[in-house]
Amino acid sequence: LAATIALLTDFGNQDPYVGMMKGVIASIAPQAKVIDLTHAIPPGNINRGAFELWQSAPFFPPGTVFVAVVDPGVGTIRRQIAIAWPDKICVGPDNGIFTYLLATEQPVATVELTNRAYHLKKVSTTFHGRDIFAPAAAYLAHGLNIEELGPPAIDLIHLPLPHLEMIDDETVQGRILHADRFGNFITNIGLLKIDGEDMLIEPWLPFFPPTRFKFKDAFVPLPNGADLRLGATFGDVAPGEPVAYIGSSGMLEIAVNQGRAADSLPMQVGQELLLVCKG
Amino acid sequence: LAATIALLTDFGNQDPYVGMMKGVIASIAPQAKVIDLTHAIPPGNINRGAFELWQSAPFFPPGTVFVAVVDPGVGTIRRQIAIAWPDKICVGPDNGIFTYLLATEQPVATVELTNRAYHLKKVSTTFHGRDIFAPAAAYLAHGLNIEELGPPAIDLIHLPLPHLEMIDDETVQGRILHADRFGNFITNIGLLKIDGEDMLIEPWLPFFPPTRFKFKDAFVPLPNGADLRLGATFGDVAPGEPVAYIGSSGMLEIAVNQGRAADSLPMQVGQELLLVCKG
Amino acid sequence: LAATIALLTDFGNQDPYVGMMKGVIASIAPQAKVIDLTHAIPPGNINRGAFELWQSAPFFPPGTVFVAVVDPGVGTIRRQIAIAWPDKICVGPDNGIFTYLLATEQPVATVELTNRAYHLKKVSTTFHGRDIFAPAAAYLAHGLNIEELGPPAIDLIHLPLPHLEMIDDETVQGRILHADRFGNFITNIGLLKIDGEDMLIEPWLPFFPPTRFKFKDAFVPLPNGADLRLGATFGDVAPGEPVAYIGSSGMLEIAVNQGRAADSLPMQVGQELLLVCKG
Repeated sequence: LAATIALLTDFGNQDPYVGMMKGVIASIAPQAKVIDLTHAIPPGNINRGAFELWQSAPFFPPGTVFVAVVDPGVGTIRRQIAIAWPDKICVGPDNGIFTYLLATEQPVATVELTNRAYHLKKVSTTFHGRDIFAPAAAYLAHGLNIEELGPPAIDLIHLPLPHLEMIDDETVQGRILHADRFGNFITNIGLLKIDGEDMLIEPWLPFFPPTRFKFKDAFVPLPNGADLRLGATFGDVAPGEPVAYIGSSGMLEIAVNQGRAADSLPMQVGQELLLVCKG
Repeated sequence: LAATIALLTDFGNQDPYVGMMKGVIASIAPQAKVIDLTHAIPPGNINRGAFELWQSAPFFPPGTVFVAVVDPGVGTIRRQIAIAWPDKICVGPDNGIFTYLLATEQPVATVELTNRAYHLKKVSTTFHGRDIFAPAAAYLAHGLNIEELGPPAIDLIHLPLPHLEMIDDETVQGRILHADRFGNFITNIGLLKIDGEDMLIEPWLPFFPPTRFKFKDAFVPLPNGADLRLGATFGDVAPGEPVAYIGSSGMLEIAVNQGRAADSLPMQVGQELLLVCKG
Repeated sequence: LAATIALLTDFGNQDPYVGMMKGVIASIAPQAKVIDLTHAIPPGNINRGAFELWQSAPFFPPGTVFVAVVDPGVGTIRRQIAIAWPDKICVGPDNGIFTYLLATEQPVATVELTNRAYHLKKVSTTFHGRDIFAPAAAYLAHGLNIEELGPPAIDLIHLPLPHLEMIDDETVQGRILHADRFGNFITNIGLLKIDGEDMLIEPWLPFFPPTRFKFKDAFVPLPNGADLRLGATFGDVAPGEPVAYIGSSGMLEIAVNQGRAADSLPMQVGQELLLVCKG
């Protein structure tokens, strides 16, 4: 049985680009199961792709090969790479798309995909997803040793991570990273219960030590002067009302029950926001 | 060989939410074939999800496990359930999403998904599709007995169904349920040929007896005074002209050949409409 | 092991139509691997579907069964057909959707899908993708001989192809076929390196002999008077700058680095354009 291959790109579903990648994979590793993570990363938004990849990876079987192609520099000197961790392998351009995963856990091998034996016979300058990354993933899923793909790659590109800042003992400053399909805001403020204690974390930064924080009385000050209290889920507030809560990936999120926070709250993606806990 | 799992949600294709569900399924039941029904149910539109699920289920192999997640009440006291019929199992929230299927055929078992052994280890308050429904479906596809998932669930939530009304012997009143991607209107008026006889039905209501009805001379009175005659297909009328016909699921539909009825006819979703047969 | 089945339609991802087709395939050929090429062909745009199918087919495993359903004439007298080539089979309406493939290579068998034993028991007038094409593809993937599906079909429908015109020894006139998700223009000007020589081709026309052409000094005159020089990839020019290059399918394309050519250049889909080489 071949490994699972998960695909994340900014190719959209309009063109047959993703289908071509799957055709290439089926040609090389017919037994591999291919799963779409998303192909709707905004064109060229490497940061968003890196974040979604990091969010999704823990829910896949050990040994999954992730192909991440948000690649505005395709065909230029940016390298193409594969990175192995104990439980997964990633394939894609060396442009920061693996930043969050690399920040979370040290890889065990990183190679540059220079071995042409594992490229398509004819490599285009603008579609390495099909010609280099899909074949590499298929061969890896089929059992190829990562070292066969090329020499070690060092000094990988890292994107700046959106860090938390402690304003005082009761206040942390984070940022709205993006809004999802429901118009819910996703932030970089990680919240976790460890041994019954509420902890504040930066999940992709092992260097930010988990900090004790009493969520029970926490709130998000809104730009309009209101204090948004933490609930457990959307339905905890009346329809049309805003609510902050710990999202499904452990990050603070802000939603409007049966509405769209991104369209109705006085906040926007990219903006900083505070989480206050007057304990 | 594991069963087929079919997914219907309102998660869209923008975020990796559906991909995460598939990762969870692949982890538990790697042999299961996963098929997307649609993930573009309008956010929170349980009724639409229930209708599409009912339309699609007959075309799947016996034993298919359907996961339906349109779940605005996620994390509140609404139950999570699994329902077994002789030829299929459904998994999702107890909020009416199975209304049409339940109206069509009596289930053989209904359970509440309370057995935590079959949840993900960590269950979020806002993504039960990933943490409870996907695992349940994967275990079921893998052969788990539905009774293992939890105790019987009774008094399931039912949504009101859009019923037909006989105005007189020649006229039935129905409703435009929605418009599809082509701008074609789908109604709740079911039309069927039984033993060569034209019959009018409410397909999800065994209690509405099939009624003889002569389609040959039937028409839909339009708001603009015109009478729209029944054709067999779009191409039966000139480009730009409207046509009523029996759609691919046996429901009366209204389209504009090579155009969009939803954008050009004086009718809209939710509106009542008549079907007249002056025999 | 069953063959791969690749699907291309204009059904979109909003409705469960594609899901129903996959349910039908899973019922008949549970072992078949199903891959989506795209379902976002603009409604009724047979030409676009034919082009994307032709672009994608070479990247699929030998023996793949392609189902192509852009079918505005469904239910009228247009035929439903299957076409076999040595390395693939296509299934769909006889309306020109296979034009590019047919122009590229002579098929070995063409049949009309009249054998009702291989249709669904109940065939609708508006959804042959589900009732006729999906079953045919599933039986073929399962090993059925194409001749079983019906009698030979001759005189297939062909769409007019967008031909190149040599204006003089240094200038060829082509056309902008469409824009992709990134806003990149795709043209019908084929460019190829054969034995180190730059060649100009019409890839779907074996009758247009490859013509020697010096790309090194080639340019595309823009409507605003500028000459757009050929680069190798987007990143060869500064962000916001336009670039022409040989796209991933060997066709001349025009893009704006980190922008959208379709929204910012003084050109549009359907328009003619020149490629000049002052050697």
